[in-house]
Amino acid sequence: MKGFDKLLDQGKFLRSKENYEDSKAVIVGVPMDFTVSFRPGTRMAPRKIREVSYGLEDYSPYSDDSLNDKKYYDAGDLDIPFGNVGKSLEIIERTAAMILKDGKIPVFIGGEHLITYPVVKQVAKEYPELKVLQFDAHADLRDTFFDEKLSHATVMRRVCECIREKHLYQFGIRSGVKEEFTFAEQYTHMNLIDVKGPFLENLNELRGHPVYITIDIDVVDPAFAPGTGTPEPGGCTSKEILEVVSCFRELNIVGFDLVEVSPINDLSERTSLLAAKILRELLLAVC
Amino acid sequence: MKGFDKLLDQGKFLRSKENYEDSKAVIVGVPMDFTVSFRPGTRMAPRKIREVSYGLEDYSPYSDDSLNDKKYYDAGDLDIPFGNVGKSLEIIERTAAMILKDGKIPVFIGGEHLITYPVVKQVAKEYPELKVLQFDAHADLRDTFFDEKLSHATVMRRVCECIREKHLYQFGIRSGVKEEFTFAEQYTHMNLIDVKGPFLENLNELRGHPVYITIDIDVVDPAFAPGTGTPEPGGCTSKEILEVVSCFRELNIVGFDLVEVSPINDLSERTSLLAAKILRELLLAVC
Amino acid sequence: MKGFDKLLDQGKFLRSKENYEDSKAVIVGVPMDFTVSFRPGTRMAPRKIREVSYGLEDYSPYSDDSLNDKKYYDAGDLDIPFGNVGKSLEIIERTAAMILKDGKIPVFIGGEHLITYPVVKQVAKEYPELKVLQFDAHADLRDTFFDEKLSHATVMRRVCECIREKHLYQFGIRSGVKEEFTFAEQYTHMNLIDVKGPFLENLNELRGHPVYITIDIDVVDPAFAPGTGTPEPGGCTSKEILEVVSCFRELNIVGFDLVEVSPINDLSERTSLLAAKILRELLLAVC
Amino acid sequence: MKGFDKLLDQGKFLRSKENYEDSKAVIVGVPMDFTVSFRPGTRMAPRKIREVSYGLEDYSPYSDDSLNDKKYYDAGDLDIPFGNVGKSLEIIERTAAMILKDGKIPVFIGGEHLITYPVVKQVAKEYPELKVLQFDAHADLRDTFFDEKLSHATVMRRVCECIREKHLYQFGIRSGVKEEFTFAEQYTHMNLIDVKGPFLENLNELRGHPVYITIDIDVVDPAFAPGTGTPEPGGCTSKEILEVVSCFRELNIVGFDLVEVSPINDLSERTSLLAAKILRELLLAVC
Amino acid sequence: MKGFDKLLDQGKFLRSKENYEDSKAVIVGVPMDFTVSFRPGTRMAPRKIREVSYGLEDYSPYSDDSLNDKKYYDAGDLDIPFGNVGKSLEIIERTAAMILKDGKIPVFIGGEHLITYPVVKQVAKEYPELKVLQFDAHADLRDTFFDEKLSHATVMRRVCECIREKHLYQFGIRSGVKEEFTFAEQYTHMNLIDVKGPFLENLNELRGHPVYITIDIDVVDPAFAPGTGTPEPGGCTSKEILEVVSCFRELNIVGFDLVEVSPINDLSERTSLLAAKILRELLLAVC
Amino acid sequence: MKGFDKLLDQGKFLRSKENYEDSKAVIVGVPMDFTVSFRPGTRMAPRKIREVSYGLEDYSPYSDDSLNDKKYYDAGDLDIPFGNVGKSLEIIERTAAMILKDGKIPVFIGGEHLITYPVVKQVAKEYPELKVLQFDAHADLRDTFFDEKLSHATVMRRVCECIREKHLYQFGIRSGVKEEFTFAEQYTHMNLIDVKGPFLENLNELRGHPVYITIDIDVVDPAFAPGTGTPEPGGCTSKEILEVVSCFRELNIVGFDLVEVSPINDLSERTSLLAAKILRELLLAVC
Repeated sequence: MKGFDKLLDQGKFLRSKENYEDSKAVIVGVPMDFTVSFRPGTRMAPRKIREVSYGLEDYSPYSDDSLNDKKYYDAGDLDIPFGNVGKSLEIIERTAAMILKDGKIPVFIGGEHLITYPVVKQVAKEYPELKVLQFDAHADLRDTFFDEKLSHATVMRRVCECIREKHLYQFGIRSGVKEEFTFAEQYTHMNLIDVKGPFLENLNELRGHPVYITIDIDVVDPAFAPGTGTPEPGGCTSKEILEVVSCFRELNIVGFDLVEVSPINDLSERTSLLAAKILRELLLAVC
Repeated sequence: MKGFDKLLDQGKFLRSKENYEDSKAVIVGVPMDFTVSFRPGTRMAPRKIREVSYGLEDYSPYSDDSLNDKKYYDAGDLDIPFGNVGKSLEIIERTAAMILKDGKIPVFIGGEHLITYPVVKQVAKEYPELKVLQFDAHADLRDTFFDEKLSHATVMRRVCECIREKHLYQFGIRSGVKEEFTFAEQYTHMNLIDVKGPFLENLNELRGHPVYITIDIDVVDPAFAPGTGTPEPGGCTSKEILEVVSCFRELNIVGFDLVEVSPINDLSERTSLLAAKILRELLLAVC
Repeated sequence: MKGFDKLLDQGKFLRSKENYEDSKAVIVGVPMDFTVSFRPGTRMAPRKIREVSYGLEDYSPYSDDSLNDKKYYDAGDLDIPFGNVGKSLEIIERTAAMILKDGKIPVFIGGEHLITYPVVKQVAKEYPELKVLQFDAHADLRDTFFDEKLSHATVMRRVCECIREKHLYQFGIRSGVKEEFTFAEQYTHMNLIDVKGPFLENLNELRGHPVYITIDIDVVDPAFAPGTGTPEPGGCTSKEILEVVSCFRELNIVGFDLVEVSPINDLSERTSLLAAKILRELLLAVC
Repeated sequence: MKGFDKLLDQGKFLRSKENYEDSKAVIVGVPMDFTVSFRPGTRMAPRKIREVSYGLEDYSPYSDDSLNDKKYYDAGDLDIPFGNVGKSLEIIERTAAMILKDGKIPVFIGGEHLITYPVVKQVAKEYPELKVLQFDAHADLRDTFFDEKLSHATVMRRVCECIREKHLYQFGIRSGVKEEFTFAEQYTHMNLIDVKGPFLENLNELRGHPVYITIDIDVVDPAFAPGTGTPEPGGCTSKEILEVVSCFRELNIVGFDLVEVSPINDLSERTSLLAAKILRELLLAVC
Repeated sequence: MKGFDKLLDQGKFLRSKENYEDSKAVIVGVPMDFTVSFRPGTRMAPRKIREVSYGLEDYSPYSDDSLNDKKYYDAGDLDIPFGNVGKSLEIIERTAAMILKDGKIPVFIGGEHLITYPVVKQVAKEYPELKVLQFDAHADLRDTFFDEKLSHATVMRRVCECIREKHLYQFGIRSGVKEEFTFAEQYTHMNLIDVKGPFLENLNELRGHPVYITIDIDVVDPAFAPGTGTPEPGGCTSKEILEVVSCFRELNIVGFDLVEVSPINDLSERTSLLAAKILRELLLAVC
Repeated sequence: MKGFDKLLDQGKFLRSKENYEDSKAVIVGVPMDFTVSFRPGTRMAPRKIREVSYGLEDYSPYSDDSLNDKKYYDAGDLDIPFGNVGKSLEIIERTAAMILKDGKIPVFIGGEHLITYPVVKQVAKEYPELKVLQFDAHADLRDTFFDEKLSHATVMRRVCECIREKHLYQFGIRSGVKEEFTFAEQYTHMNLIDVKGPFLENLNELRGHPVYITIDIDVVDPAFAPGTGTPEPGGCTSKEILEVVSCFRELNIVGFDLVEVSPINDLSERTSLLAAKILRELLLAVC
């Protein structure tokens, strides 16, 4: 019936129409937030980010490039059993493996930060020299949290177990327990508080290397990204993070995730809008 | 690609999968709110009602019946030119005509109340003896509003020009200018403030007749439906409106609309949830 | 230091000062909401209900009685591992067992509805003839939910496995899948939509029996209790639930819980205030 | 300059144009909320109620009467020194005296409930047989509050000192300390929880008498009136209070106030809208 | 009546008391937002900006100058027919013409951005060499939007048709379709993302020229100005825009507008407060 | 009873466990906001700041130091008579005197800014050469406000009467009446708008001197600190204020307060979180 076919694409990020086979990057949403201690709610993020992307232009003046000709596929949200951490991580890992096996770049939208672990696990298998870039207010380097090994607060410690020493680069970190900073001194490149400066300083060293990027939206100050579970005042501006993201095209990105957006704390929707813009720049960088 | 096919149906009301051809009722969203004087925002309603319907069960304990086997089709939102009232009404009218010509029941989700006019215009052509049931806090019977003939405040006056005298039944009315109530005395069946009582009294008289039902969500008290443009304290409860809607299956409904839900004023989403429940009962009644 | 000793009691429900040993009822908060599918956030409820109880009077005009002379103890919140359902239920169960062993009445504040299961499990051991009264918008009688046996949507099915057939009394139910209603017909006393009427009808039959009461706050309409995870329009008023709760003193209550209050969706705090009032009446009834 | 003269009347309640001299009733706003213990914010009420009255019709279907021909004057807000209770009460009292001396009916909009005291003090001088009707969730009958004699929690006790014994009629009361209820037994007509029933029962007894009416908006349930400082679940509906207010025309009202509306807690504005409707009915009753 | 005369000036911006005849600048509010596609609501802006201006000081430390001695007149809001774009633009244009004919500077408060078009049309007639400065996140240079020539998304294209080539200066632009940027290359001075730097670079070139300034509040980052219809993360700070506005006194401003403030999305009111401050600086610059 | 002892410390800032006797700094909350003219609500701040501190780490990467070994004591909130300014200030002053007499550093959490006056009064007695550092958007230097000498708008004028001329250093000031700026020229060191730059310039001059620091949270831009009574756009970022606060350890701080946080306007809680972080850095600096 003519005139009535609009609805079919509404649910997809920036109206992606490509099919899976031809795509270069594959977007997967993960509505998981069970291990969060403070304010859950990130499970609604993938849907919300897609919804607000409806108002975003395909064209980016930041990179003078348009998503129109790019080949990416939005695969929708994973079906995960609420409250079952083990099974959920398994499903994420299996999905990442499948995308990698098909020669595509996995792009995961959280959900909580823990989802980074199963993805990096698979990406690191494919790229043993993988370097991981973490943009985050929190170190996330504890060994355990409330006695649990798998938590949003331990995720980057687990990630460190998948990659080589000193292959984790951390930017914007401004919260953690003493032990995390001691660990970081020896095993990671940690940059405190600042984001753009340290990133540009490391850019040359990173060029060419296969890199995985994980952005915890709380790296940005809660003024710009109030919609997150553990807001941490003192972060960078939205303008600054967009300047950093615009440089991603100079990197060899083999995987990416964007986590901890929490629509329930985002009345103005500006956090989801910022996430959608970051995602657009990222897709322009890798496709 | 297996496991990734979930997203396609997300945008539809209660995951309707039927195709247009086999359907008995056709849902159409109309994102229009230009003539509103107080608080615009109802244009976001069709999408929001679909979104919250995701959490609604197919089965209704109110009518012990399930939408699973019902044939309805969600055609999505109409593309209307923002700010152009004339063209927008034309598009709505044409759409209603098409659905009626195909022998189906039109179900419109507003948007503002003015959308009722072009739909009833077409339905009344098909059913000259049509009776219209209006559930509303406001009479909407002015002849003009700010000198305009076509407005959310004049819509039922226009509707009266399409149907026979005294064929409009109004329930829950509790606001208007003196002239509207004078007009109503002569030309409509107006019931003040109360909803369920007067409806049940009229039920017998209405049975068998082709009826068109228009529900302005503000007939319900703003405690239960805060998400609306011109909230009017002193309305019925959500329990009461659901009891009334459960009786709709005793009527011969040939068209229906639900208008004035405004998601921007509905932080708790309970207005959209109530609208989705009303819509479910309605579809159970007509399919 | 004089004048500075106020703070110590701030965190407790209605400034309870009694110690554990002398208490008749013991309040325990459970900040758990991992299995929730729609809107998590109930983990913040125990703290919030205590906080708003600060503005509540000890004296109740509903029962002309005061909490001043009652012996109850607020034990604070349980330490549970976020995301670990199994371990969390174990901790709850162990706590309930301890309270029962000490001859006291367990009063649990959720958190999600699943917490009812481990508590009833222990209470039913103590009282094999136990009858359970459930006030809820949802049947919660599924056998599995997303393949999981332990979920907020299956909790009352699990509870049924702990008590005798037809020993579950359900009030206010207005949502569920077909199978739940079929199950209920055979195995429970289910009362649809209405609360006060059916409760009063059953009151005589229940008198004397050991009863456990679980109140899911969503039994109340979202107009009165917007702060909940799965709001279901069409419920009872706050006045009605308070009238019902005032009758609890005629019952032989051996355990109680109040679940699914979600402060994050409760901007006006009226849901937490209602919960605190219910809790006050309950404590007056059992102490 | 033609076409530009609209603004002058915007700030007034329902566009009152009358001058003071010809008016029968005089509206005065009192932006005072200093003695409030829980949530201040009622000082913004008079302005807000005027603002939302802009969307209210002059005509009332409740009483089939219109404000168009009524003589009332909106005198604006009093200038009071923030934080200075004594001086503020003095200013209120002087204003009430002036209005009464001019043979007009004082209509005060709070602000906190304490403002009732200085007004009744003057009205009772004029009408020694004055009966006071209080619609309120709280008894407000303490002798002191935090050692202060003048407080929102003691106001009706002070009022009792201005009028004869048993000349205070209280409706909807559902909170207070034990002592208040003991006092009420001897010195007032207190009706618990219910509003409309008790009011109708007392109506005959009150007819003819000079009466002063004070409505604390929290008599209405927080579902209908969330915008108030000490919300108390279990109150009446907005429909019920409007039915009661519609009967006020049968009384001989010589003074009136409406207090404790708090716009800051009234996101949907429905509390202010209800207040404006109550005020309209009241003005229709006395003018 | 003494002490009661406060209200008359409440509705005006910063209590402007001057009459029209003596004024140098005339403020006009335009409650229009019909052509907006995403989030309407800007129609409430003029009233809200006036309301919050009540808390603003007359004196500005930014320019060490006070509005006390300045001659400006707040003419209130235009009466426009909701939903009728053509008639509304006509009314705006006629008003601008009248103000210009009287030798005064028009200062319009939106409403949506489309209102700039009829104003500039008249100003450009008076000043054929007019240069227009646009501070905006969006280029607004489309030729048509949803087939409409007159829309908030095409307004600066229409403006370009009223002034000479390359006489439009754009600052802060960070969103648009490819075609707009191509158009800008040839016909406007477009500055991407940054605001203060490019403005200062152009300041000398602009000095002396008659200039019209249009500020779309979304040029500021949504962290500082969340109350707008199409928030675009990555903008300037409120401090930066105030620094720019403080330089306006060096220009020969012959007309001005401030658009797209949307109070409904501005819970903290900081967007309206920023708008009021900008307006104060502007009036200080031109009076 | 083991496992149930968690609650006792919940109400304290960052779980302070120290007793008063051994402490070096003593935190006192003052729930006072009676003299506020615009938006009251700061009385809830002390409790809220303690509540959110629960999610804050003891360790600070800003100063590479941890609160674990520091000796500070949270004494809770003062009991003050709501609405009685005189008595309240007396209580505050007496408390400050007691803390100083015991050789400890007073740390007050407001409440409104007026509370600074009684504290400084006592501190200045102890340290006649005291210099006061004020971080604030408003000068607060009026002599009277609405005829009152004691007000949040006159507080720093009163403070000036307690210390030597030119011993008040003001940073970030961007609002006030002309007279305040004239006064400042002669009697204080006032720095307009900027915060970090001027502070660093004055740092050397201040080193060694006994200093009292008062931070009005509105010195920070409302984007970062929306939860305040009189938001003033154009302030510094949260990152900037934290950088400044990190330098406090270079000063000889003998007293401190943090005022004007208003939880009711702080939906995202980021203002309270920022306040808690500032407080942590301050305690690290003085203990």
